[in-house]
Amino acid sequence: MSRIAARRKVVRLTVGERPITREDMLAVEEPLEIRVNGRSLAVTMRTPGHDFDLAAGFLVSEGIIAEGAHFSAARYCAGATVDGANTYNVLDVTLAQGVAAPDPSLERNFLTTSSCGLCGKASIDAVRTKSRFNVAADELRVDAELLASLPDRLREHQAVFEKTGGLHAAALFDGATGELLVAREDVGRHNAVDKVIGWAVKENLLPLSGTVLMVSSRGSFELAQKAMMAGIPVLAAVSAPSSLAAEFASEVGMTLIGFLRGRSMVIYSGAERIVNTLVSV
Amino acid sequence: MSRIAARRKVVRLTVGERPITREDMLAVEEPLEIRVNGRSLAVTMRTPGHDFDLAAGFLVSEGIIAEGAHFSAARYCAGATVDGANTYNVLDVTLAQGVAAPDPSLERNFLTTSSCGLCGKASIDAVRTKSRFNVAADELRVDAELLASLPDRLREHQAVFEKTGGLHAAALFDGATGELLVAREDVGRHNAVDKVIGWAVKENLLPLSGTVLMVSSRGSFELAQKAMMAGIPVLAAVSAPSSLAAEFASEVGMTLIGFLRGRSMVIYSGAERIVNTLVSV
Repeated sequence: MSRIAARRKVVRLTVGERPITREDMLAVEEPLEIRVNGRSLAVTMRTPGHDFDLAAGFLVSEGIIAEGAHFSAARYCAGATVDGANTYNVLDVTLAQGVAAPDPSLERNFLTTSSCGLCGKASIDAVRTKSRFNVAADELRVDAELLASLPDRLREHQAVFEKTGGLHAAALFDGATGELLVAREDVGRHNAVDKVIGWAVKENLLPLSGTVLMVSSRGSFELAQKAMMAGIPVLAAVSAPSSLAAEFASEVGMTLIGFLRGRSMVIYSGAERIVNTLVSV
Repeated sequence: MSRIAARRKVVRLTVGERPITREDMLAVEEPLEIRVNGRSLAVTMRTPGHDFDLAAGFLVSEGIIAEGAHFSAARYCAGATVDGANTYNVLDVTLAQGVAAPDPSLERNFLTTSSCGLCGKASIDAVRTKSRFNVAADELRVDAELLASLPDRLREHQAVFEKTGGLHAAALFDGATGELLVAREDVGRHNAVDKVIGWAVKENLLPLSGTVLMVSSRGSFELAQKAMMAGIPVLAAVSAPSSLAAEFASEVGMTLIGFLRGRSMVIYSGAERIVNTLVSV
């Protein structure tokens, strides 16, 4: 676990006071190259750890795989350091027989991780076409009280954030019981979500019907896209969503919540899924 | 300017209280495809506005251009919508004669925007090799008092953030006088920085010696890389840096500051540039 946070000597300075030199913990950021069947597909700057999940989740987001059986094996390749040492920063995924590898001509799209067209509408349509799941049909109902408890519960699992202040987190909850299924941290919020979804692929839980994906960050189009590709009907963010994330959620029937803080939240789409029990009493 | 923030009907819910339906402002997120000499180079999800600067700054970060004269022209192409309408989401940059277009075989690197090797050290070396500027030689000294004033001054320029809560900001300051040179907002923190650097390219200000780049976000390797490629000697972030950003700054002689809040800051690298006047009195 030492690769997740690194010690570093820093100077803490308060204006007009004497500087203090001390050791601090920093969130580790390292490149990860994801290869599929030996062919380079993407490089992402990530926090080491749960790399297999990260790769699996990334491939779900891109529509390549949708269940554990699609993902035959993954191994770290020897990196390209001068001395030939394995950096654990290159991961080669072998897809199961019959699973089509990504089309090389589409490589560009994978790398942006926001494979899109030339306008927001085209981006939305591209994801809708690619997704194997229909979140609109998900009959989950979530209690507002339960939702309001999620940020604190996410924070409880942000072990490295507490030490470094430098990581995003994502967690998957059972929308009916509130049970936390998995939580992951990463310097990149998209990586944290990929690690969560990759875990679910390994557990053969896709589509993730009846679940809530909670993120410590804003709600971007990219995160909503990842939720859609995994069949997650509710995306809740601590901060603001973008216009395109809200449009997308509305068009695909996903519930999108932002500014989930304290006892309050803002619902941008799919409000029918939120049950505010105390009011109906 | 209506493309920067969009109105949307939302439901504000507080547990146990009646939901309130109202109009909110959301930060606009739309894809931008950057082409160079007619060839597609990258797609980024960005907030519309200052797209020419975004493209110019992106090309600086990637080592393609370093002054206004390298950037001959840019124009929006007709987008690929069914009705042929211009979406203002595809920008074609024409480089000046004699400026080498990006090598197609490197396309992958541009798209990750963290063109890197297989380990952090290789990533650092790649940027150092690519950069035309040497920030280590920059003799700027910055008063801690001045630095402590920057977050508030950045916030004053976050007009859209105030409305939407959904944008990152970046601003460039004169390190000696504290004068704000330019400030930009975007859903992507890397885009906000590219817009700042692209503005400076147009003004023929590179290398940006003697300046401080202030960002509303964390300090990632990617942002430190962008600062280096533009010759900016001091990068200050409201939140935490990553381990790789700190290593990078240390190796290239950049001053890296994090947790710049109130009267305090943490200096991760290049502390000799920070003058704490009140103490020396």
